[in-house]
Amino acid sequence: MEIIRAVRWSDDGRAVRIVDQRLLPEHYVERDLKTLDDVIDAIRTLAVRGAPAIGIAGAMGVVVGLDRHIGEPRAQLANRVHAAAAAIRATRPTAVNLPSALDRMLRRLDATAGDSQCLLEALRAEATTILDEDREMCQRIGEHGVALLSEGARVLTHCNAGALATGGIGTALAPLYLAAERGIRVEVYVNETRPLLQGSRLTAWELARAGIPVTVLTDGMTASLMQARRIDLCIVGADRIAANGDVANKVGTYALAIVARHHAIPFYVAAPTSTLDPATPSGDSIAIEQRAPDEVRRIGDVLTSPDEACVYNPAFDVTPAALVSAIVTDVGVHRPPYDFTLASRTRPPLAGTRPLATSP
Amino acid sequence: MEIIRAVRWSDDGRAVRIVDQRLLPEHYVERDLKTLDDVIDAIRTLAVRGAPAIGIAGAMGVVVGLDRHIGEPRAQLANRVHAAAAAIRATRPTAVNLPSALDRMLRRLDATAGDSQCLLEALRAEATTILDEDREMCQRIGEHGVALLSEGARVLTHCNAGALATGGIGTALAPLYLAAERGIRVEVYVNETRPLLQGSRLTAWELARAGIPVTVLTDGMTASLMQARRIDLCIVGADRIAANGDVANKVGTYALAIVARHHAIPFYVAAPTSTLDPATPSGDSIAIEQRAPDEVRRIGDVLTSPDEACVYNPAFDVTPAALVSAIVTDVGVHRPPYDFTLASRTRPPLAGTRPLATSP
Repeated sequence: MEIIRAVRWSDDGRAVRIVDQRLLPEHYVERDLKTLDDVIDAIRTLAVRGAPAIGIAGAMGVVVGLDRHIGEPRAQLANRVHAAAAAIRATRPTAVNLPSALDRMLRRLDATAGDSQCLLEALRAEATTILDEDREMCQRIGEHGVALLSEGARVLTHCNAGALATGGIGTALAPLYLAAERGIRVEVYVNETRPLLQGSRLTAWELARAGIPVTVLTDGMTASLMQARRIDLCIVGADRIAANGDVANKVGTYALAIVARHHAIPFYVAAPTSTLDPATPSGDSIAIEQRAPDEVRRIGDVLTSPDEACVYNPAFDVTPAALVSAIVTDVGVHRPPYDFTLASRTRPPLAGTRPLATSP
Repeated sequence: MEIIRAVRWSDDGRAVRIVDQRLLPEHYVERDLKTLDDVIDAIRTLAVRGAPAIGIAGAMGVVVGLDRHIGEPRAQLANRVHAAAAAIRATRPTAVNLPSALDRMLRRLDATAGDSQCLLEALRAEATTILDEDREMCQRIGEHGVALLSEGARVLTHCNAGALATGGIGTALAPLYLAAERGIRVEVYVNETRPLLQGSRLTAWELARAGIPVTVLTDGMTASLMQARRIDLCIVGADRIAANGDVANKVGTYALAIVARHHAIPFYVAAPTSTLDPATPSGDSIAIEQRAPDEVRRIGDVLTSPDEACVYNPAFDVTPAALVSAIVTDVGVHRPPYDFTLASRTRPPLAGTRPLATSP
């Protein structure tokens, strides 16, 4: 099974190559982000999106265009790196992967001796490691998560936590890809995920492309499907998981968790350890990005509500840990009560560039 | 306050005049339905929609075009009426108001003596009575419901159960109109209600037009708003209420009821007694209309999910009575346990054409 690669280096290694997710499912377009502005614009407009993918793109974005300044003294280049990291950090507030990846780049900067050339090479290597680690973590999430799927499982997901959201085979979708690879039959239902339709546009597209049966429904139809006993379990991604297990994810996730609990259906969250945030004690401290009213008010050129009406448009919501049956990470399946206060220290070393499609 | 009239007779009394709800909020167009085919098409394509409004339009539709056949013998005209009623009945299965209104027209047919002219007049009168009664019932729902609203109430609704859905000032929105009229400040939040966006297109439009503050959100955002303690109560309409109080309404209602219960927020249903269905013991026996996949798959010309993906698109869902805090009808506020087995017999006589905006 050939899985889409949402973010990687361009062939010459100087640009960030992304799949432009604004154009799917109608058009598949790869785009090379060659400048810092390209990267910022791509993250802000959701051309590249998904917590792991924006972490990767952000880290790689710090390096983009830096080779043009290789003749400058080291201190000057370092200033450029700091400025780039600050600008990229300001694009989107909720996912922890972006600031974590940028912090990692800055730590590498501080830890690297030598001239501008050494610096650039070290930063490129760090961004590549972040990408490779993410691919590996996706694979491991898949390995742990696939154990939750029995033959014929009917799985509901929300938004896109698939290959398009990561450097690898996804988080929530990783177990589904591995199930398919191993001949375990699964059926996927996905909420379209208004306002930006990542479920219908992206998840349905990548699953259909992989030959996995997928059915799209609107966000309000979930409960009806569960009432009809057509869902065995839910699995979603995360943008930030607080130390107590509260989960920030695409808006609509919280309602899904409540409705799943009402029907006694397991509700799983899948995320790499890079999405765990030990520094955030609970969901209350997570900043929720509010986005432009026109995302709700218009679909393409169609006006969907009158200009006089106000719009409420948070990009994310917070699902309390109490509603989460288990959190699947690259290190295992965590059950409540959750305690991720030491998460960053307990993460095992990763093998780096081990090929994706092999079993552990 | 001038409230929109969604369905009524045309000026010459020969056509059904509707506001074409497919074009709102961008275009306000009144359309005269002059033939049976016009009426059937308008109901099927949701140019006229809302359980009470399609009941009214269906009853009036039986008469439309009949005057061209006034020279025929009575038996032949009666056959036309039966054929028209059968064709209109087949348009949409879930709302009880449509078959009820058509049954009423057929009972009037049977009960009317005289020639074709007498028949036509009696049927016109019956359809007018159905319209007038609905206007009156909306007003009474408003009177009973407004008692549930305190100053500053923040009210969440779903879909459109307003003037556009009825012959009068709406069902769920009736208390809000009366509150505004009486100087009670209310704030309304409305789910956009995918796939056909009756919340953002219609409810937001008619409330904004009446000067009532309204905020639109996507269907998945409800829980986030409740978690933030920004909603005091929910009120929605109904397409059919079973004898035990189970409520069929626009898909998404059931999830809303679950999420409201999770946050201990009252969840009210407002409907005229014509929506109570004593013949249906519980929600299990209510036929749920499945609509075309393209309603979900496309928005305007925009493809929102790949053609390979399946689509689940029920138009309605069933909220169990246990999740409903109260049902507001034209005869009062009903609290659980509900028993509407005698509903049709306990309905008091209605005054008919009493003006709308007066208090009882």
